[in-house]
Amino acid sequence: MDIKHKIEIANEEATRRLISGDPVLVDIAPAGEVIPGLEGRMITHSGPPIKWQRMCGAQQGAIIGQVLYEGWADSFDEAKSLLDKGSIRLEPNHHHQTVGPMAGTISPSAPVWVVENKSFGNRAFCRQVEGRQQFGDYSPEALASLHQWRDVWGPTLRKALLKMGGLELKTIITQALQMGDELHNRHSASSSLFSNAMAVAMAEAEILRESAVPTLKYITRHNLIFLGLAMACGKAIADPASNIEYSTVVTAMARNGTEFGIRISGLGEAWFTAPAPVVDGLYLPGYTAEDAGLDMGDSAITETVGWGAFTLGGAPGILALVGGTPEEAIAYTREMKKITTKAHPTYLMPALGFAGISIGIDIRKVVQTNLTPIIDTAIAHKDPGYPIIGAGLVRAPMECFKQALIAFGQRYNSQ
Amino acid sequence: MDIKHKIEIANEEATRRLISGDPVLVDIAPAGEVIPGLEGRMITHSGPPIKWQRMCGAQQGAIIGQVLYEGWADSFDEAKSLLDKGSIRLEPNHHHQTVGPMAGTISPSAPVWVVENKSFGNRAFCRQVEGRQQFGDYSPEALASLHQWRDVWGPTLRKALLKMGGLELKTIITQALQMGDELHNRHSASSSLFSNAMAVAMAEAEILRESAVPTLKYITRHNLIFLGLAMACGKAIADPASNIEYSTVVTAMARNGTEFGIRISGLGEAWFTAPAPVVDGLYLPGYTAEDAGLDMGDSAITETVGWGAFTLGGAPGILALVGGTPEEAIAYTREMKKITTKAHPTYLMPALGFAGISIGIDIRKVVQTNLTPIIDTAIAHKDPGYPIIGAGLVRAPMECFKQALIAFGQRYNSQ
Repeated sequence: MDIKHKIEIANEEATRRLISGDPVLVDIAPAGEVIPGLEGRMITHSGPPIKWQRMCGAQQGAIIGQVLYEGWADSFDEAKSLLDKGSIRLEPNHHHQTVGPMAGTISPSAPVWVVENKSFGNRAFCRQVEGRQQFGDYSPEALASLHQWRDVWGPTLRKALLKMGGLELKTIITQALQMGDELHNRHSASSSLFSNAMAVAMAEAEILRESAVPTLKYITRHNLIFLGLAMACGKAIADPASNIEYSTVVTAMARNGTEFGIRISGLGEAWFTAPAPVVDGLYLPGYTAEDAGLDMGDSAITETVGWGAFTLGGAPGILALVGGTPEEAIAYTREMKKITTKAHPTYLMPALGFAGISIGIDIRKVVQTNLTPIIDTAIAHKDPGYPIIGAGLVRAPMECFKQALIAFGQRYNSQ
Repeated sequence: MDIKHKIEIANEEATRRLISGDPVLVDIAPAGEVIPGLEGRMITHSGPPIKWQRMCGAQQGAIIGQVLYEGWADSFDEAKSLLDKGSIRLEPNHHHQTVGPMAGTISPSAPVWVVENKSFGNRAFCRQVEGRQQFGDYSPEALASLHQWRDVWGPTLRKALLKMGGLELKTIITQALQMGDELHNRHSASSSLFSNAMAVAMAEAEILRESAVPTLKYITRHNLIFLGLAMACGKAIADPASNIEYSTVVTAMARNGTEFGIRISGLGEAWFTAPAPVVDGLYLPGYTAEDAGLDMGDSAITETVGWGAFTLGGAPGILALVGGTPEEAIAYTREMKKITTKAHPTYLMPALGFAGISIGIDIRKVVQTNLTPIIDTAIAHKDPGYPIIGAGLVRAPMECFKQALIAFGQRYNSQ
């Protein structure tokens, strides 16, 4: 069998696994209880591996915030000194079956979503999405929602979820894609549907008014509550497609604000990186492109499984946030068809005549067509200490895909 | 001032009133407690006035069901005999500030949504949407949900709503239009958002588990729960635009399954009717066009205020139900711009580049362009005793608009 044929078979298997992903929310638990290898004074972060000294301002700010949140230090200076001398272990989320939005920082006491892919039995984890600390803001106000998550929202949702015995997320995702969500920057429908399900579960579990009211208020008014869930789903869906010999399908795209990295099924755990790109975006009042850090976050796991900017054409409501016209959005979605292996049979976009979303990014097609994946993203400040400053679109750097294709040739052409 | 100028000024005022509508859900109460003039053995129905003998099969079936539900008779024959001899008063919903889906039947003990238009102080009412009895099914199974509404869901929601002090619906409508609802046949987003608001209210009101769980389960899984609310909103928004001298703006479109009727602002309470048209639709398994009754229901009040098929282009998810392509849907929406007075400044459609929905149907433009309003609708059986059998699109009959324009000329040209 020639190599091309072997690749086709491998990619078909990778795509089959991506399509058969069946994510179920099974727990909402402190990270240290559930994430393998997260223990002691350790913080995980978004993107490919990076040392403290090379981290961008926003990621450094978020790590400082996480140290303060855990009570390992009482001030910025004390936290920075611990980090400077390497007293806190820093590792990528992706090395622990985990993903995190923006800086992506996770420490042991922070509650994470626990999603199990029922088709393959693997689990994935994601931290909570807030909008301040994950962007590098380490102020007491920014840390307040982390405390609420740990003390009120997390335990309350956990109690209701465990009593319910888990929540199937495929149904919510399917419906949300038909309600104008693209499941990366726009989660209005998925968040609302998730809150509906949890409201029933909380009533069943007879949660007391003093926990139920603040938790329901928070989740029903947080229209990105589902982003952390979608990211955990993306990771849970992508992981079983990893490590298939000869497959050229992308299994992760992640950024740490300094570098953009991808992983390829047939190339195991290796990262192929390039400098993180500049985001083309719209800014919140008071901020401009001058203030912006570079592309950051594990959230591109949503595009890795065909959501986000890949389904932009089905989610025109997002354009108020990221800019552009409905026609351009549909054009992006059609373009992504050219670099992927298949249309998903269940995740459909009504605005494109109920076409399935494009899934299975093939590095060969990316290099051949000269089209890299398009990604919806938020924008963090270049310096530590700021909340979200904008949102926009970004292209994955071609360099990652070229490097990966070269490595693929070195690995397999000789066989 | 010439008549044309007077019409322009009047229509501007009618449109201003339509646009400034601010609907708030203020109560969920037994119809007999709140609907003016609904008392004793009386049932209100959809569409223009019609006698029992001329009612279509589905409307007769629903009226029979309503008589059985009230306990005024114990069998079909007994109910029919009461109706045949005129012992039950039958009047149109629209004559009582009220609307109802499909057959639209309302009797004193049935809980209705009470919506107040805060800008003008008027109230409007709508019955609950189920999917069986409102289509003419009078079986015990069909009546079961009416009993649940009266005994559990209605009182539970009422308690929570009154404790909350009312629920603003404009925000939900604005968001739902950006989430692919068109607020007539598709209410996935609005229903979900409404359920979340009620879940918080129910937790605040400390509703007991035995009422809270079934009520939350019902509303979170009923993806047309908001239709009755949207209809009450439509009526509450349209009524203040009535009775403006010289205005050619449509203030009601309603069908009883036998006749289609419209009302015009400058022509007061008069109905202009034509035979109810055939719906072009898709059928549920087991049914065909042969089984279909004619166009029925007060739900075209949603198109009267610019929702429904007028915003079809923003709601491609509905096409799975009513047929057609996203391009056709956008074309319908653009077409409706030609027969209306203005684009709404707040109710926007992302799929059309955030264009406002078209509001203020002008009978002059309808006749001049030869384009009648397009309406999303469900389909009932031609005979009594059936649940929903399909859904589709229908055009309002031109005859109504021509008659209205003639009457308008007779009324105002002589002045």
